[in-house]
Amino acid sequence: MPTVDVHTHIYPPSYITLLRSRTTVPYIRSFPSSPSSPDSDRLIILPGEDSPSTPSTSRGRPIGPEYSSLAHKIAFMDTHHIDKSVISLANPWLDFLPAREAGSAARSINDEVDALCAEYPGRLYAFGTLPLSADTATIVGEVERLKGLRYMRGVIMGTSGLGQGLDDPALDPVYAALERTGQVIFLHPHYGLPAEVYGPRGGEYGHVLPLAMGFPLETTIAVSRMLLSGVWDRFRGLDVLLAHSGGTLPFLAGRLESCILHDGHLKKEGRTEGRRGVWDVLRTNIYLDAVVYSEVGLKAAVDASGADRLLFGTDHPFFPPLEEDAKEWHSVNANYTAISKAFEGNDEAAKAVLGGNAMRILRLD
Amino acid sequence: MPTVDVHTHIYPPSYITLLRSRTTVPYIRSFPSSPSSPDSDRLIILPGEDSPSTPSTSRGRPIGPEYSSLAHKIAFMDTHHIDKSVISLANPWLDFLPAREAGSAARSINDEVDALCAEYPGRLYAFGTLPLSADTATIVGEVERLKGLRYMRGVIMGTSGLGQGLDDPALDPVYAALERTGQVIFLHPHYGLPAEVYGPRGGEYGHVLPLAMGFPLETTIAVSRMLLSGVWDRFRGLDVLLAHSGGTLPFLAGRLESCILHDGHLKKEGRTEGRRGVWDVLRTNIYLDAVVYSEVGLKAAVDASGADRLLFGTDHPFFPPLEEDAKEWHSVNANYTAISKAFEGNDEAAKAVLGGNAMRILRLD
Repeated sequence: MPTVDVHTHIYPPSYITLLRSRTTVPYIRSFPSSPSSPDSDRLIILPGEDSPSTPSTSRGRPIGPEYSSLAHKIAFMDTHHIDKSVISLANPWLDFLPAREAGSAARSINDEVDALCAEYPGRLYAFGTLPLSADTATIVGEVERLKGLRYMRGVIMGTSGLGQGLDDPALDPVYAALERTGQVIFLHPHYGLPAEVYGPRGGEYGHVLPLAMGFPLETTIAVSRMLLSGVWDRFRGLDVLLAHSGGTLPFLAGRLESCILHDGHLKKEGRTEGRRGVWDVLRTNIYLDAVVYSEVGLKAAVDASGADRLLFGTDHPFFPPLEEDAKEWHSVNANYTAISKAFEGNDEAAKAVLGGNAMRILRLD
Repeated sequence: MPTVDVHTHIYPPSYITLLRSRTTVPYIRSFPSSPSSPDSDRLIILPGEDSPSTPSTSRGRPIGPEYSSLAHKIAFMDTHHIDKSVISLANPWLDFLPAREAGSAARSINDEVDALCAEYPGRLYAFGTLPLSADTATIVGEVERLKGLRYMRGVIMGTSGLGQGLDDPALDPVYAALERTGQVIFLHPHYGLPAEVYGPRGGEYGHVLPLAMGFPLETTIAVSRMLLSGVWDRFRGLDVLLAHSGGTLPFLAGRLESCILHDGHLKKEGRTEGRRGVWDVLRTNIYLDAVVYSEVGLKAAVDASGADRLLFGTDHPFFPPLEEDAKEWHSVNANYTAISKAFEGNDEAAKAVLGGNAMRILRLD
């Protein structure tokens, strides 16, 4: 059974050119090199990480060829015994583009990524990118076009939707098109939480709080809003793969279901009955990647959605090796270790998570 | 082995009087009764839940005698076979008081709660309340005074600390006093997350998002900030009981540890080495209550901190029965069920979580 990485990003060359052409977040900024920081190009994509008060070592991250080079991706896969990767444009995708540019940019990027996959037949597949700032017809058109591209297997999407989140009813035609064409949404965070929640000392902790807390909490809130707005009551066949093992949804699902049941307002409006429950959606419509860096988290993900709905991932090229000369990535091995510990004595389940589930769910060759 | 509830709140009579005397959040507000809402008194404590745009059914919650009556507390305990309860003032405690009033209010409330416990010897204990808006000497003085009160076993605390969060170094004398006197902090959320994270439709979902997401995420961020600022490196004997099974810390601990290890800024500052790791603190200084409403969450909590560090709780008087005439509380039974399922075939561990751990850790008679 092959090993498949479903959470692995790329900024294809045209996207790098786009980022270099910009002067505000998201962009690539060249800092004058100094003895203590030899990397002069930094990728600055997160909201708030470009403020003048942010220490330069917290401002973005060094950007090297691993962000855009397919050869680097394949070498990384070989080092870590990954047979197939389902690559996706990294955040913030095309969310920031003006409406008039989004449609053509999405078509061009999707064609480019599909062509990249064709360079390594059988090893690379992809999630496409939607022009979410464009009008609905343009977005739906791209969903339908993606269905016809050889290596595309779904779409990656942030949490902002058309600008008002994923519980926005204006997204219904997009959800309908994705359900109709059988394409999975890979739901991925980017916007995090407002900086105030990290307090006045938040900047001292580098990127830790936005990445370790902001990202998973953003995902969890986004999927909860989808649930509460009845997305899966209306689109019972809509499948969503949640990044980072669901943010924290497996852990909070019980509390979420309890809070819905106990809510006086929802009850008065008759909305606590007849809806699909959190656990039902978790076990029917939601897939989780296995990017959680611990046996504790991985087991909770398995308990929540089932071992047949969990898919191995790496988050490459983020979280690179801890030592400059290391070949293997600590972050990848942490996820491998979590899987082997969680499934000790159950090789079949481990193989399913490592690749079998992705092969089946994403219909890989 | 007795069953002990460590997460159970009370608003003692003097606190109710205080809330009734106020006209802004937190307060008790009387709405004119109507055929559809017979309850005219509503307890409005959460930031943002009193805005004119909030539907009245989402504005606060009905308040009855179960919030302040000891007889109701004892009846609730009897119904649910709870032998002992460690009661605590409910949020937002005394956080909102002007500095000059806080010290005497804390002394008076703590004496009142200790006296309430004396009415049912052996059945009631308490966590005290600190005057956190007062000067440090006053706060430390109250920590020391609490140590001498018969039924006090620690303090309940929100996440705002002295106003700048729990990673504020100005809290060090308070942490030192708590460590020195061997009193546990029961860390409890109140402030949630800024309303913007719930999006423009957040209000339609009643209290679900602030309670199911905001509360646990607030706790998780607060404890992560404590970790990052080195609180447990400086106070290695400081014990903290986290509400709602740690918010989501058990699930996110792996990601948090990984993000610390990989952070370029922390690394350059030499702060990734020599610190105590997340798992070490989880298994040495942190206790978790078992208020998580699911077997999935409960197992993750056990895996993260150990079955000897998990303590049964109910969150009474919140999440009352779903049906008006029900005697048993669905929310309580959800937590009982999670424990019995998670520990099927391991009665000793179940008994420890239900009461044995609390007896030992809080030195109950």
